[in-house]
Amino acid sequence: MKFVIIGGDAAGMSAASRAKRNIPDLEVTVLERSSDVSYSACGMPYNIADPNREIDDLVVRHAEVFRKKQGIDLRTGYRVDEINAGEKTVVGEYNKGKTFKVPYDKLLIATGASPIKPELPGFDLPGVFTLKNLEHGREIKTFIRSEDVKRAVIIGMGYIALEMCEALHARGLEVNMVKPRPTLLPWMPPDLVSLIQEELAIHGIGVNAGHEIERIESDNGTLKVVCTDLVLEGQMILVAIGVRPESSLAERAGIKLGPQGAIAVDRTLKTSDEDIYAAGDCADSYHVVTGEKTWVPLALRANRAGWAVADNLTGKKIELEGVAGSAVFKVFDLEVARTGLSVAEAKKFGFDPVEAVIRAQSRAHAHPGSTTIAVQMVGDRKSGRLLGAQLVGKEGAVHRVKAPAVALHAGMTVEAFSQCDLAYAPPFSPTWDPMLTAANQLLKKM
Amino acid sequence: MKFVIIGGDAAGMSAASRAKRNIPDLEVTVLERSSDVSYSACGMPYNIADPNREIDDLVVRHAEVFRKKQGIDLRTGYRVDEINAGEKTVVGEYNKGKTFKVPYDKLLIATGASPIKPELPGFDLPGVFTLKNLEHGREIKTFIRSEDVKRAVIIGMGYIALEMCEALHARGLEVNMVKPRPTLLPWMPPDLVSLIQEELAIHGIGVNAGHEIERIESDNGTLKVVCTDLVLEGQMILVAIGVRPESSLAERAGIKLGPQGAIAVDRTLKTSDEDIYAAGDCADSYHVVTGEKTWVPLALRANRAGWAVADNLTGKKIELEGVAGSAVFKVFDLEVARTGLSVAEAKKFGFDPVEAVIRAQSRAHAHPGSTTIAVQMVGDRKSGRLLGAQLVGKEGAVHRVKAPAVALHAGMTVEAFSQCDLAYAPPFSPTWDPMLTAANQLLKKM
Repeated sequence: MKFVIIGGDAAGMSAASRAKRNIPDLEVTVLERSSDVSYSACGMPYNIADPNREIDDLVVRHAEVFRKKQGIDLRTGYRVDEINAGEKTVVGEYNKGKTFKVPYDKLLIATGASPIKPELPGFDLPGVFTLKNLEHGREIKTFIRSEDVKRAVIIGMGYIALEMCEALHARGLEVNMVKPRPTLLPWMPPDLVSLIQEELAIHGIGVNAGHEIERIESDNGTLKVVCTDLVLEGQMILVAIGVRPESSLAERAGIKLGPQGAIAVDRTLKTSDEDIYAAGDCADSYHVVTGEKTWVPLALRANRAGWAVADNLTGKKIELEGVAGSAVFKVFDLEVARTGLSVAEAKKFGFDPVEAVIRAQSRAHAHPGSTTIAVQMVGDRKSGRLLGAQLVGKEGAVHRVKAPAVALHAGMTVEAFSQCDLAYAPPFSPTWDPMLTAANQLLKKM
Repeated sequence: MKFVIIGGDAAGMSAASRAKRNIPDLEVTVLERSSDVSYSACGMPYNIADPNREIDDLVVRHAEVFRKKQGIDLRTGYRVDEINAGEKTVVGEYNKGKTFKVPYDKLLIATGASPIKPELPGFDLPGVFTLKNLEHGREIKTFIRSEDVKRAVIIGMGYIALEMCEALHARGLEVNMVKPRPTLLPWMPPDLVSLIQEELAIHGIGVNAGHEIERIESDNGTLKVVCTDLVLEGQMILVAIGVRPESSLAERAGIKLGPQGAIAVDRTLKTSDEDIYAAGDCADSYHVVTGEKTWVPLALRANRAGWAVADNLTGKKIELEGVAGSAVFKVFDLEVARTGLSVAEAKKFGFDPVEAVIRAQSRAHAHPGSTTIAVQMVGDRKSGRLLGAQLVGKEGAVHRVKAPAVALHAGMTVEAFSQCDLAYAPPFSPTWDPMLTAANQLLKKM
């Protein structure tokens, strides 16, 4: 069997490696358009923060290892332009104008996602960046090193924007953030958002929410983000307003798409074409809370889905239940974590959501070093089910969220969660963990 | 209704406060033999570690607050000697020889547990301590302040022993631990134990396992722990070999006992007597993995059980599902966590246990500050169920264990757990959280 994979990042290389491990003499070909494979994309902000590390430190496994040790036919610089699902081939270009045509028995589309750039003037000027692949990281790192960058403007206020805010601040830059929508992290309750706002203020980050952006201008080496009512200046601009699934190849091949244009896959990662799988940021997934399709482009899902594809086409049947919408990030000294549905999402999916928002201490009564931790918990009044949780705090927020994430997979009620034996010792929490306090408060409202 | 509570610590005061909150004009009487109520017993090692803090900092709520603000008839210095279940009274002594007799409609026994002292010579010498209640903590703190304590011997190597090891080391003492059984933490796999042993060695703690203790001797202000093949010296000795439930009052009243002599209670915390409840360290509980009775004297259960008693006798029916055997502690820079069953326990309860033990990194590839985290995961070959997990590491071990704890409450399989969306960001874990890596390894063995 000939297994061909388009894309050599998390999902693609996970699938390639595991397929070869499952069946060592399987023919596995990976076609990767860039020169980078298997790197920690999520690590880029932290790498950029540190002038003493090279961006290539983020490479987890080099192309030669895949080729020589694992026997994978890994071709970098190979851009696929068309999938011919009828004749089961992919065609494209390599080495500046040479064309290739590769036949497959089974195909995996793992083309990832690409950063969104608005269709506005000036977004293609030098010094305006996005950050999704290693080449982007390399460009940003080189730019900061070679240019006299003192101020940066970040357009967007999501995970990447906030992580890059910390990274650029660590490099000594003055950082301003800006976006059209009026609130930072609109999915989060105000009492949690305010902790993040305080943290950004402490570090002198400009948070300019609610400013419609008109264009970027260049003025003697200074870039200006011109909004309807505000102008922000800097030597570099990062556009971090989100990503979209790279599903155009699939779409042109007649494969069905799901939410937000991601490639629709079933629980075995198969697309609407019997011989074509999709995995990673280009593909959709089921949400374990709603049971509906969703699109969550995150690394764990990409790796897991890559493995599942390899298992499924080498004879082990694997069905992935889905994602819980868990996401975590760090911004300066704060940990931010979420899993499941926000109140607005819960309403959209027909639940009758109730929320409790509490502030608690991260450690026991009278234990030194305790800090504030804020928890939101959302439940469904009709069924009693736990629907989601969000946490913000200086310690323990990220690892704590794994508990409600498991509860969401198990379809637990808030009452059942409130009875869980979450353990206690004074350096780590009050006797009632803040999540239990939130669950107890939520129960009263349900 | 007259609600009488014997014991004014976690379970007793939780029940008293909540009962008054539920029904403000309920008559609630608490009979506490010592002068201390409502304090963080688990915080004692950390308080002892700090010469600048008073032991009374651990008091969460003072007796006067319970009396005046909450209207609880809280009587300290009242020792109950007998429960007359027939006539529904309790009798005892207060104020040096005066007797009292208090009638009840509903009674809660919340007498806690007491530290075990072996029946060997010298264990009652001055300078030999146990640590369970605030008075013990006070004595130890005063002793360290007033005496010229340079070396301490700790008999026992459980949670309290290890926490006190760190506390006494922080006070500048040389610390030796000793116990008869040959291994430190016998319920833990050797690969996890070795991390703890390294940590103790780094801090110069003497770990003397496998030495039968014969007696304690006093020799010119120096205490000697004399073993069959070893003598350890110090100015103070802490006996931390475990606790036993304070169930003698209940037993004499004809109430049924459960495992290890703890008072047997049903899921509503009712004893074999219709009008008598028991909660806290003196009472047993159900184990959510085995479905059988167990005795786990820990603070969260005590608080939760206290609340449940109050709810049940004020008209809200609450059934506590049980404990998962979750326990966490810190020893120097290491976090130690467990939930569910060890392999030996699983065998004892008729499971067919399989374990995976892995070492992983606490942070992502190439992320600075990463440390080793070791995980054991135990599953049942017959049913596929997750049975337990243990973690040791410098960061994230304690909060991580809450995820498998929830999975145990939900009766999840290892496969279902392995599919959970546990979230990932580089400062907090590799893409596959160490728990998922352990679950994936375990699946291969099942």
